[in-house]
Amino acid sequence: MIRVGIVGYGTIGKRIADAVVAQDDMKIAGVLKVSPDYEAKVAVSRGFPVYTLPDRVEKFKKAGIEPAGTIEDLIKASDVVVDASPEDVGRENKEKYYQRYDKPVIFQGGEEADVAEVSFNALANYEEARGKRYVRVVSCNTTGITRVLTSLTLNGVGIKKARIFIARRGADPKEHKKGPINDVVPNPATVPSHHGPDVQTILRNVDIVTMAVAVPVTIMHMHMAYIELDSAYPKDQVIEAFAKTPRIFLADVGAGFQSLAQVIEYARDLGRPRGDFPEVAVFRDSVTTHGNELYLMYGVHQESIVVPENIDAIRSIFGTLPKWRSIEKTDKSLKLTTEGKRYG
Amino acid sequence: MIRVGIVGYGTIGKRIADAVVAQDDMKIAGVLKVSPDYEAKVAVSRGFPVYTLPDRVEKFKKAGIEPAGTIEDLIKASDVVVDASPEDVGRENKEKYYQRYDKPVIFQGGEEADVAEVSFNALANYEEARGKRYVRVVSCNTTGITRVLTSLTLNGVGIKKARIFIARRGADPKEHKKGPINDVVPNPATVPSHHGPDVQTILRNVDIVTMAVAVPVTIMHMHMAYIELDSAYPKDQVIEAFAKTPRIFLADVGAGFQSLAQVIEYARDLGRPRGDFPEVAVFRDSVTTHGNELYLMYGVHQESIVVPENIDAIRSIFGTLPKWRSIEKTDKSLKLTTEGKRYG
Repeated sequence: MIRVGIVGYGTIGKRIADAVVAQDDMKIAGVLKVSPDYEAKVAVSRGFPVYTLPDRVEKFKKAGIEPAGTIEDLIKASDVVVDASPEDVGRENKEKYYQRYDKPVIFQGGEEADVAEVSFNALANYEEARGKRYVRVVSCNTTGITRVLTSLTLNGVGIKKARIFIARRGADPKEHKKGPINDVVPNPATVPSHHGPDVQTILRNVDIVTMAVAVPVTIMHMHMAYIELDSAYPKDQVIEAFAKTPRIFLADVGAGFQSLAQVIEYARDLGRPRGDFPEVAVFRDSVTTHGNELYLMYGVHQESIVVPENIDAIRSIFGTLPKWRSIEKTDKSLKLTTEGKRYG
Repeated sequence: MIRVGIVGYGTIGKRIADAVVAQDDMKIAGVLKVSPDYEAKVAVSRGFPVYTLPDRVEKFKKAGIEPAGTIEDLIKASDVVVDASPEDVGRENKEKYYQRYDKPVIFQGGEEADVAEVSFNALANYEEARGKRYVRVVSCNTTGITRVLTSLTLNGVGIKKARIFIARRGADPKEHKKGPINDVVPNPATVPSHHGPDVQTILRNVDIVTMAVAVPVTIMHMHMAYIELDSAYPKDQVIEAFAKTPRIFLADVGAGFQSLAQVIEYARDLGRPRGDFPEVAVFRDSVTTHGNELYLMYGVHQESIVVPENIDAIRSIFGTLPKWRSIEKTDKSLKLTTEGKRYG
């Protein structure tokens, strides 16, 4: 059993913790919280040992939570640390704590690529995290793009260049202070947005440019993709590629999937934890070929898409399972769509 | 003085009416309203003769508005009719009324292209409406795209193909029943959206594909454009083209234009009627060249962008002014941005 310490039990960390619990080859060593808020109490109720920073111990005690120890105690109790701290805090934690212990650490996409030795996506480069000390699971949008592009190339559809146009959700559901409201915000106004270069930390040779705007939505990101292929391919070959690629879901308008909200409604109806949808939701009706051009729209659930990637990153680091067996195990344990999927 | 009858005094019609009032070569013959609501009362307070449909006369009287006559009386009192009815109602009006009178009619972009002999954009094909009986001013998004592409070609920047990705405003500010709220809706899920073919009703040979999603915004549409040019051009040449093209405004992030809402705030600060912004608002920072590729983002104010186009369409039909003199006269009378603009 791999003992996993989760540093940062927020939007991503709490989901990874629950995903770890669903595995039979790993378990939670503990989770680190900075504030003794309702999320900390949820961690306690889940039975997770709750650690905190040295200067927060008294605060936790006052709030009725007895900390299991400090961050360094958590690192010592873990075989691997998953850092899901807010942007840039992961790097601070590395300098302050992780460098002093000989434990592998997985960072999230909020950190710059050079925080780690390798940027990770299970479909694209599972093997590259093997034995690494520092691994970074790329961010939600980058994960979505990487899955779509890798699905194509794994299935014989060659890519000449990808131009992706992103309508980003402005905030997560719980972020009550973030906007926009009734506005569309270039994010950034310059081209490219960071997503293109970020994809290239994994798919090093892909010709990709991305543009992004933020919109008043908390539910999911939406991508409009224009991809030039290396020749003309039948649309059915592209659809078939998506249909058999794990962690891609084909949403049909005819089946009621007319928008991102309907994808999340489906997740809620399925009883998925927190109404999460870790698959890339490709709108099947949008998949269009036009000579050697491919168009498609897809949704990316920013809160959950990286969760299965973190689970696979753990197995990849320790080399306990090969790529496809890990992906399949993760998907089954998290009850992702497995019907028609080809694992290997 | 050209006497202009406005059929449909809603979002577009009321703006065209005010724009007509600002001209010294045309005047309002009257406006047609179907409901005696607050907009009808605004029309009365503006001093416009208010006409209605035959079966609505009593309703208007009960509401305290004495109609000046019926739609046929309005047609008779006009030299030209601008039909700004809801989608498809323009065509019904044509079949029911306009065909029986020998007066030119201008339709809006909500109607299909074949309602008219020519689709119109002042920059692109001003001369083609000359002497026509039925003219159609294309819709807001189509007008925005047509201006941007025409600005490039008029200034020596050749276009190979245009791929435009649109985050549409979900509703106008007054449309209280329309959505989405907290959702991104493929609009449509199929590719292309109608905008590409609609641009081709004016720029017949342009290779264009468009995709669109609707977002929870009432303020403006946002376009992300990817344009392949016929060779590499310096970015400055593109910026210069936009800078001197009438009805295109370059919004600098450094000057505070960080989003669409800031563009509208500027219009409000300028004291523009209804806070309108009929110019295409190009985010200067987004204009990027990359080999022969051009990227940019721009906002399109759906409520007002077609207003100056309708004024020019009237002059074009009657041949009272050549293209650039009409555009300049319209822009000055409506107090659009004229600094640095080249009219001719």
